[in-house]
Amino acid sequence: MDSATIKNLLQQVQQGTLSVPKALDQLQTLPYENLRFAKVDHHRSLRQGVPEAILCEGKTEAQIIAIAKGLLKNKVPVLATRANPSIARALKRVSRRAVYEEDARMVVIQSTLPKPQGDVLIITAGTSDIPVAEEARVTASVMGSAVETIFNVGVAGMHRLLDHLDRLQRARVLIVIAGMDGVLPTVVVGLVKTPLIAVPTSRGYGANFGGVAPLLTMLNACSGGIGVMNIDNGFGAGHLAHRINVLGAC
Amino acid sequence: MDSATIKNLLQQVQQGTLSVPKALDQLQTLPYENLRFAKVDHHRSLRQGVPEAILCEGKTEAQIIAIAKGLLKNKVPVLATRANPSIARALKRVSRRAVYEEDARMVVIQSTLPKPQGDVLIITAGTSDIPVAEEARVTASVMGSAVETIFNVGVAGMHRLLDHLDRLQRARVLIVIAGMDGVLPTVVVGLVKTPLIAVPTSRGYGANFGGVAPLLTMLNACSGGIGVMNIDNGFGAGHLAHRINVLGAC
Amino acid sequence: MDSATIKNLLQQVQQGTLSVPKALDQLQTLPYENLRFAKVDHHRSLRQGVPEAILCEGKTEAQIIAIAKGLLKNKVPVLATRANPSIARALKRVSRRAVYEEDARMVVIQSTLPKPQGDVLIITAGTSDIPVAEEARVTASVMGSAVETIFNVGVAGMHRLLDHLDRLQRARVLIVIAGMDGVLPTVVVGLVKTPLIAVPTSRGYGANFGGVAPLLTMLNACSGGIGVMNIDNGFGAGHLAHRINVLGAC
Amino acid sequence: MDSATIKNLLQQVQQGTLSVPKALDQLQTLPYENLRFAKVDHHRSLRQGVPEAILCEGKTEAQIIAIAKGLLKNKVPVLATRANPSIARALKRVSRRAVYEEDARMVVIQSTLPKPQGDVLIITAGTSDIPVAEEARVTASVMGSAVETIFNVGVAGMHRLLDHLDRLQRARVLIVIAGMDGVLPTVVVGLVKTPLIAVPTSRGYGANFGGVAPLLTMLNACSGGIGVMNIDNGFGAGHLAHRINVLGAC
Amino acid sequence: MDSATIKNLLQQVQQGTLSVPKALDQLQTLPYENLRFAKVDHHRSLRQGVPEAILCEGKTEAQIIAIAKGLLKNKVPVLATRANPSIARALKRVSRRAVYEEDARMVVIQSTLPKPQGDVLIITAGTSDIPVAEEARVTASVMGSAVETIFNVGVAGMHRLLDHLDRLQRARVLIVIAGMDGVLPTVVVGLVKTPLIAVPTSRGYGANFGGVAPLLTMLNACSGGIGVMNIDNGFGAGHLAHRINVLGAC
Amino acid sequence: MDSATIKNLLQQVQQGTLSVPKALDQLQTLPYENLRFAKVDHHRSLRQGVPEAILCEGKTEAQIIAIAKGLLKNKVPVLATRANPSIARALKRVSRRAVYEEDARMVVIQSTLPKPQGDVLIITAGTSDIPVAEEARVTASVMGSAVETIFNVGVAGMHRLLDHLDRLQRARVLIVIAGMDGVLPTVVVGLVKTPLIAVPTSRGYGANFGGVAPLLTMLNACSGGIGVMNIDNGFGAGHLAHRINVLGAC
Amino acid sequence: MDSATIKNLLQQVQQGTLSVPKALDQLQTLPYENLRFAKVDHHRSLRQGVPEAILCEGKTEAQIIAIAKGLLKNKVPVLATRANPSIARALKRVSRRAVYEEDARMVVIQSTLPKPQGDVLIITAGTSDIPVAEEARVTASVMGSAVETIFNVGVAGMHRLLDHLDRLQRARVLIVIAGMDGVLPTVVVGLVKTPLIAVPTSRGYGANFGGVAPLLTMLNACSGGIGVMNIDNGFGAGHLAHRINVLGAC
Amino acid sequence: MDSATIKNLLQQVQQGTLSVPKALDQLQTLPYENLRFAKVDHHRSLRQGVPEAILCEGKTEAQIIAIAKGLLKNKVPVLATRANPSIARALKRVSRRAVYEEDARMVVIQSTLPKPQGDVLIITAGTSDIPVAEEARVTASVMGSAVETIFNVGVAGMHRLLDHLDRLQRARVLIVIAGMDGVLPTVVVGLVKTPLIAVPTSRGYGANFGGVAPLLTMLNACSGGIGVMNIDNGFGAGHLAHRINVLGAC
Repeated sequence: MDSATIKNLLQQVQQGTLSVPKALDQLQTLPYENLRFAKVDHHRSLRQGVPEAILCEGKTEAQIIAIAKGLLKNKVPVLATRANPSIARALKRVSRRAVYEEDARMVVIQSTLPKPQGDVLIITAGTSDIPVAEEARVTASVMGSAVETIFNVGVAGMHRLLDHLDRLQRARVLIVIAGMDGVLPTVVVGLVKTPLIAVPTSRGYGANFGGVAPLLTMLNACSGGIGVMNIDNGFGAGHLAHRINVLGAC
Repeated sequence: MDSATIKNLLQQVQQGTLSVPKALDQLQTLPYENLRFAKVDHHRSLRQGVPEAILCEGKTEAQIIAIAKGLLKNKVPVLATRANPSIARALKRVSRRAVYEEDARMVVIQSTLPKPQGDVLIITAGTSDIPVAEEARVTASVMGSAVETIFNVGVAGMHRLLDHLDRLQRARVLIVIAGMDGVLPTVVVGLVKTPLIAVPTSRGYGANFGGVAPLLTMLNACSGGIGVMNIDNGFGAGHLAHRINVLGAC
Repeated sequence: MDSATIKNLLQQVQQGTLSVPKALDQLQTLPYENLRFAKVDHHRSLRQGVPEAILCEGKTEAQIIAIAKGLLKNKVPVLATRANPSIARALKRVSRRAVYEEDARMVVIQSTLPKPQGDVLIITAGTSDIPVAEEARVTASVMGSAVETIFNVGVAGMHRLLDHLDRLQRARVLIVIAGMDGVLPTVVVGLVKTPLIAVPTSRGYGANFGGVAPLLTMLNACSGGIGVMNIDNGFGAGHLAHRINVLGAC
Repeated sequence: MDSATIKNLLQQVQQGTLSVPKALDQLQTLPYENLRFAKVDHHRSLRQGVPEAILCEGKTEAQIIAIAKGLLKNKVPVLATRANPSIARALKRVSRRAVYEEDARMVVIQSTLPKPQGDVLIITAGTSDIPVAEEARVTASVMGSAVETIFNVGVAGMHRLLDHLDRLQRARVLIVIAGMDGVLPTVVVGLVKTPLIAVPTSRGYGANFGGVAPLLTMLNACSGGIGVMNIDNGFGAGHLAHRINVLGAC
Repeated sequence: MDSATIKNLLQQVQQGTLSVPKALDQLQTLPYENLRFAKVDHHRSLRQGVPEAILCEGKTEAQIIAIAKGLLKNKVPVLATRANPSIARALKRVSRRAVYEEDARMVVIQSTLPKPQGDVLIITAGTSDIPVAEEARVTASVMGSAVETIFNVGVAGMHRLLDHLDRLQRARVLIVIAGMDGVLPTVVVGLVKTPLIAVPTSRGYGANFGGVAPLLTMLNACSGGIGVMNIDNGFGAGHLAHRINVLGAC
Repeated sequence: MDSATIKNLLQQVQQGTLSVPKALDQLQTLPYENLRFAKVDHHRSLRQGVPEAILCEGKTEAQIIAIAKGLLKNKVPVLATRANPSIARALKRVSRRAVYEEDARMVVIQSTLPKPQGDVLIITAGTSDIPVAEEARVTASVMGSAVETIFNVGVAGMHRLLDHLDRLQRARVLIVIAGMDGVLPTVVVGLVKTPLIAVPTSRGYGANFGGVAPLLTMLNACSGGIGVMNIDNGFGAGHLAHRINVLGAC
Repeated sequence: MDSATIKNLLQQVQQGTLSVPKALDQLQTLPYENLRFAKVDHHRSLRQGVPEAILCEGKTEAQIIAIAKGLLKNKVPVLATRANPSIARALKRVSRRAVYEEDARMVVIQSTLPKPQGDVLIITAGTSDIPVAEEARVTASVMGSAVETIFNVGVAGMHRLLDHLDRLQRARVLIVIAGMDGVLPTVVVGLVKTPLIAVPTSRGYGANFGGVAPLLTMLNACSGGIGVMNIDNGFGAGHLAHRINVLGAC
Repeated sequence: MDSATIKNLLQQVQQGTLSVPKALDQLQTLPYENLRFAKVDHHRSLRQGVPEAILCEGKTEAQIIAIAKGLLKNKVPVLATRANPSIARALKRVSRRAVYEEDARMVVIQSTLPKPQGDVLIITAGTSDIPVAEEARVTASVMGSAVETIFNVGVAGMHRLLDHLDRLQRARVLIVIAGMDGVLPTVVVGLVKTPLIAVPTSRGYGANFGGVAPLLTMLNACSGGIGVMNIDNGFGAGHLAHRINVLGAC
C-alpha cells in the first residue's frame, strides 16, 4: 500500500464513498510496510526477483518443503543452501523449475533469470574450496551478477596466480576463497585495487581448527581492503559481492 | 618503463643508436615493475596520492620517523595509525603539513586533498566506538571518499536507529561499528540494500573477550551481505569502503 | 521426624518409657531431613507433583528405565529429556501414561496435569531452533505454567517480529531462542519490560562454534534484563521461566 | 498519534476541513512512534523514573558528562556504572543530587527514590565478589526493588550458607555471585524454589581465565532454574532481578 | 646386575679367571639398569605384579594383540583401557585369564590378584559418570587397593550426598567424579580431611565443551586439597589413588 | 553440642530437671553442628591448629585485616597468600607473631608450630618457578608436614635431575612444579612410585598462554599417578601434599 | 626465455630481421618465468623428480584422479596423502606403478626411485603415532632421503629411549612424533646436537583437544632447536627433514 | 671415565695393584656420565664454547647474576635473553666482556668468538618484527653461524620480497619472521628449496590474539618444509638454524 493507495483511500473518504470507520480499519490493518515503516520495506519490493535463502542444515525435509511452498506462493524465488540430493529431489517435486546445483549444494527455484550485470570474479586456493566457491557463484548469479570462477591458484605455485593477474585486476569485485593457512587473500589484495571478499574454508586438519586458522589469517591481513566472511559462507560472500557489484554497474 | 619506453628502446636498437649489449643490460636491469610484472604495479602509480599507512603500535618513534621521511621523499602521503600525541608531535616536526586527528589517533601528511566522491556512511552503536569510527572516516577521506558519521545509534534504543533509516538506505557503502554484543550490523543489514562493512570493537568486559563476542556475532549474521573486519580495524574498514565506494562513483 | 515426633520422644524419656541411650540413638540416627536441616527438604515436599528430569544423553536405556521406575514407585512424575524414539518406546512399556513429545525429544510421565497458570511466551529466531523451544515449552507446561510459542521471528525480517509486539509485551516471562548470531534477545529486550530468558542454540556453522557465538552475543547484550542459559538448554529455560512465572501468578 | 487522532483526521477529510494532500502529508510524516510502531515506544513512557545506565569504561570524562547532562535535561535519572572517583566528582559538579556508591563504583542521580517493593536477596561466595554484588544492589534499588545482601557464604564453609537457609528460601528473587570455581549457584538452586540469577566474577587466577571458569560452571549447572549473566555484570543482574521482582509484587 | 655381580666379576678378573677384555665387554654391555642408572629401574622390579596399561583407542586390534602378547611373555599383567567388546574378544583369545570389565571398558589379564589393602572410595555425581568410575575402580583394584563405589550423589539432591558423609570421612583416599558443572569435588573437599582426586567427565552438552567446564571448576576449587585428572581419565585417578592409598596402609 | 551434651539433656528430661518444651527448644535451636550435621564439622575441630587461608588478591587491605582479626579472635592461625609487602606490614601491626615469607608471598600468623612429620619433597624445573614452590612449602609446613625443596632440575639438563634420583624415590609425596612446556612431572612420575602433585606455573611466553601449555601437558601425562593443580596454585599443592603426607605418617 | 633468447631477439631487431612491433609483442608476451621473474621458477626445474603432493581429504575421487593424471602427463611424480583404500585402488587404475603405503595412508606414483642419501631418523612415543611417522618416512624417502624409524620409545619407559641414544645422536635429522602430552621432543633435544623436527599427533582424549596439548608442549620446549609441525603433519615433517638432510649430504 | 679408564681399572685389579673393594667403589661412584649414560653427556663436552641461555623474564636480577657467575666459573659462555638495560648493566659489572645487544634484548658473555660458518638468512615482514629477528641473529652468531638479515619485506609490497629472491635462494637456512597474519613464510617457502624456520611474532591487535593468528597461519602452511617456533621465540629459531646450518657446512 503505497502513497497512491493511501491518497486514493483519503479521496474516497473525502468523496463519501468510504466511511471513516472503514477507512480507519483499512489504515490500521494496512501492513506495517506502509507509511513511515514502509521505508524499511522499500528494499523488499526491490528484492522481487531476488531469491529468499533457506539454510537446509538443521531443518527437517518437511520444514524445508513447507518454507519453499510458502515462498513460491508469494512468487518469491527460492535459494536452498546446504541441500543434499534428497532435499533436492524433494524440492523438484515441489516445483519443476527447481535446479540442483550439485557442486554448490544448492537448489534454485526462479522463474526468470535476471540479466547478468557487472563482473564478479571468484578464485580458490585449492580444489577442495570449490563447493564454497560454487555456493558464492550461484548466489551472486541468481541475484543478477555476472560471475566467473578460477580454481586452484594457491600461493604454493605463485605462477598460476600471476598467470591470471590481468583478469584479477579487471574484475569489479573479487571473492577469494582459501582453506589451510588462508594466505591467498593477503597476497591478492596487494595486487589489485578491487574490493576483495575473503572466505575461509574448513578444509584442513589439526591446528586448522575447522577453518579458524584461515579465518584469523584473513582478519589480520595487514593490507586493508579485505572484508571477511564466516567459515564456508559462500552464500554470504555471493550476496555481499552482488551488493557491491551492482553499485553503478551496467 | 612502459610499452612506449620499450618500443623506443627497440627502435634505438633497430636504428643502431643503442648497442645490443646495452639494450640487453637495460632490459635486464629494468625494474620489476616493467614488462609482465609491471601489471602488479600498475596499481602503484594509481596509488599516487593515496597515503601509505604506518601502524605505529610496536614501532619505536625513531622507526616511525624514518619510514615517514622515506615516504615523503618519494612524494607518498603518510597515514600514521594508532599514533599517540608524542608521535604526532614528532611527525609535525618532520612535516609542517602533518595533521593530528586526535579522536582517530592518526597523523595525516598529504599535500593535496583528493576531491571527495561517492557516499560512505559510518555509524556506531555506542560512544566508545567513536575512535574506531574516526579511524575509518579519516582513512576513507584521505583516500578520496566523501564520508559522514552518525554515532550512538545502538539497538537498545531502536528508535534512534530508525530515525536515520532514510540516510542509511541512501548511502553507497555502510560501515557499522559496534562493541559489546555487536548486533547492530545484523539489524542494519536487513534494512538496506547497501554493501555493509562491520567492525567489531574491543569495548566490553568479561565474556566479551576483547572484541571476540561482537566479532563472532558479525561473522554469524544470518543475513548475507556483511563483510567483517578485524577487531578495532577502522583503517581496514575505511580502505575497503573506499575501494567499494569508487566503483562507478562520481 | 518433625517437632511433634521429637516432642513425643522427649515425653517418653520424661515418662521413663524410653531409656536415655535409646533416645540418644534415635536422635542421632534421625534422618537429616529433621531439625535444622529439614529446612532443606521443605522444598522437597513442595516439589511433589513436579517432575524429576532425566537427561537421557550419556545414559544406557537400562539405566533410564531403572531411574524412571524408581521415580514412579515414589509417585514422582518423570521428565526424560533428549530422549530418542527407542527410549520413548521403552518408557511407554514402563508406563502407559508415558507421552512422547517428539519435537521436544522428551517423554513425560505424569498422572495429573497441573492447572496452567501465568503466561510464558517462547519465541524462536529460526525454524531449526524449534526443538529447543519445544523442550522449554514441555518443561514449563508440565510444571504448571501456561505456555505459548511463536516460531521464526528472527531479526532478518524485522517486520515478522514487530507483528507480535503486543503479544511480547503482554507476557509475564519471555524465553527467546536463537542460534546463528543470536541477536534476537538483544532486540527483544529493548522492546519489553518482561524478564527475558535467552537460550543460544547450536544451529549454525563455522565460527558459530556449536553455539558459542550466540552464547557470547547474549551474555554481552548491553541492555540488562537478560538471563542466559547453556547452549540448547531448553529444559533449564523452561524451569527458570516457571519459577519466575509463578511469582504472584494466578 | 493514536487511533483517535487518525479517526479525527479522517473525519476532517470527510468533512472537507482537511484537504487530501495535507492529510496524506500528515499521515506520511507522523513519527514512527505512531500507529503500529508506536507500540515499541509504549514501554518508553513506562521507563520514566527508571534510570538510564551509562557504562563509564571506554568513555572519556567529557563524553560521560555530556550524556548525563542530556539525560537530566529530559528528566531521566542517571545510573553511571564502573565510575571511578574522578568521574564521581565530575558528576557531582553536574548535579548536587549525585550520589557516589563507592563499593559499587556507581553514581546515581535520581530526584525521587521509588518506594521499595518485593524482596531481592543478593549473596556472594567471597569477599572479593562484593563490588559486583553492590553494583547489583544499587541497580535494583534505584529501579524500585527492596534489596538485601549477605556476603561471604561460599561452599568452603557450608555451615555459613546453611545458617541463612530460611532467608534464602523466603526471597522472591536470588542473585548469587561467585568467582573462582563458581559453584555457589549450583548448591543454592537445589535448596530453594526461587528464580536464581547467577553472576560469575573475574576473581581468581590461572585456569580461571578472568571469570570463564565460574561462567562455565554456572551455565552447566545441572539443576535448571539458573539464569546466567556476563562476568562481573552486577548491573544486568540487578536489572533482571528487578524485572522479575515486580511481577505481582507489592 | 647388582653390586654382588660386579664384585664377582672383579674377583674373577683378580683371580685371572676372566680376561680384562671380556670383563670390559661385560661391563659395557651390562644393561642400563645397572650401576647408577639402576636406580631408575629399582622401581621396575617393584612394579612386578602391577599391570602395564594399553590405551586401546588409536591402536589397531593387531597392535593391541601384539603388545599384550609381548607383556604376557614377560609375565607382566595387562590392563587394556578403552577396550570395546571386539578387542575384549580378541584378548580372550590371547589369554583365557582375560576378564572384560564391560562398564569400565577394560580387559584385565592378571594371574594372581593382589590382596586388597587400604581404602579407596569412588563417588560419582551422576549415572553417566559410571564408566569413568569403573575404570578407576578396576585400575586401583588390580594394583592392589581395596575400592568401593557410591554412584549418583550429585549436589542437586544434597541429602543423598550427606547420607554418605560418614563413609566419605572414613576413606583413606577419595576419587570424586563429575561431569556437567563438576561442582561435587568442591563440596566434598570441604567435608573431609582426606586427599581428594577429582575427575571431570565429558558428560554434558553445549558450553560444557566435552568436559572443559567441569575441568575448570575442579582446577579452580578454592578449597585446596584437590588433585585434578584429565577429562574421563579414570585410569590415572585409580593409579594415583593407589599410590596414595599404599602410603602406610595395611 | 556433642553426644555427651545431648545425653546430658536427655538425662535432665528423664530426671525431671528439664521440661519437655525447654528441651525441645534447645534441641531445635542447637547449632547445625550438632547431631547428624555435626559430622560435617567433626573435621572442624580437627582443623584446630591448621591455618585458615586468605587469598589477598582481589581484597582490600582493610578487608584482609578484618578477616585476619576475626580468625585470630577465634584462635585460628592465619595463612595470607599472594600478600605483597604492604599487606605484610599491615598484618604485622595486627599481630607481632606475623611472619612474612617473602619468596612465597605469604604471611603466617601461628602461635605454636606443629611438629613436622612425614616427608614432602618439592622440586622445580626452573628458577622462576620458585615463588610457587615456596608457597607450597610454607603451606605444607605450617600444616605440619616436613618439607624439603630442590630447585632448577628441569629436563634440559637431565643429569641434574638424575643426580637427585635417590632423594626423589625416597619422598612420601612429590610436588613437581614447572612452567614453559611443563614436561618435568611426566619424566619424574616414570622414575618413582610416589604420589605426584604437578603444578603448572605461568612462567613462559607466546603459546604458553599464561600457563595453559604446562597445564595441558600435565593433564595429558600418559603415565598415571599425577594429580594436577591450577596454574601457580602452590597453596593447593601444599595442602593436598599435606593431606597425603599424614596418611599413616609418623 | 633466458638472456640468450633476448639477446638473439635484440640482434634480430638490430639486423632488421624482426620488426619493432613484433619484438615488442614477443617481449610483452614472454612468460613470467623469464627475465627477473624467472628466478622464481629456477627452483621449479630443480623440483623435477620431486613428487607433487595431493592432500586427498576434502577432494572427491574424481578430482584426485584428474589431478594425478595431469601431473603424470607432465612427468611429475605423484604423492597422494591421506588416501583411503578406495582412492588407492582408483589411482592404481590410473597407473600401474602406483604403490599404496597403507600405514602411511599414501599412494606413490614415481618411475625412478632417487638414490637414498643422508640419514633421517624418525621416532615415535607410542604405537598410535605410527601412521604419522609412516607419512613422514614415505615423504622423505620418495624425495630421496635415507630414512629409518624407531617406534614406541616414549618417556614413560625412559630406558627404551636411552637404549637408542647412540642411534639418535648419529642421525643427521631427527623427526620426533608424539601425541598425549608430547614431551618426547623436549627430552630428546637435550640429548642430541641434531636438528629436531617435532610433530604432535591427535592421539589422546579430553584436555588433549585433538593434539593441541602436545602442540603447545612442543612449541614451549625451553631447549631451543625444535621446529614444530602442524598436528599429524607427517608430510610436512618429511619434507622439511629432506630439505635439511640434503644440506651437504652424500 | 671412558673405556680406556675402565680397562685400566680392570688391569689394575688383574695386576693386583687395585683391590676389589676399591675397584667396586670406583665403579659405583663413577659419575653417571660414564659407561652407558656417558653417551648422554658426550654432547656436553661438544657444547663447550656454546653459550648457555638464561631467559631473564620471570627471574630476579639477583638470580640472573648468580646463574651467570656460576656459568662463567665453569667457563661456559652466557647468553642472557629478554634482558632489559638494568640487567645488562648488572651483567657488565659481573664481566667486562659482557656485550649488550640492545635490539635483541640480549647480553652475550663469550671470550672467543667462533669463526662464522655456513649461511643463515633472516628476513622479517615488518619493522616491528626486528627485535625477534635480532634475538635469532645474535643466538646463531654466538653459536658460530654466519648470519645476515633483511628487514621489512612483507607480502603487502611483493616487489620488495622479489628483489631479494636471489639472496633467499642462496642461503643454507632461512628464518622468516612475521606478525599480523604471518603469511610471509608460506609465500617464501614456495620460492626456495632451503629449510625454512618460521617465527610468528606477537605484533598485531584484535583477532591476532598476541601472535596466535600468525602461529596458526604458519602451522597450516600447505607447502611443507616449514618448521614453526613459539611466538616471539627468536632464540629457538637461531638455535635450530645453527643446528641445521652446521650440517656439512664449511
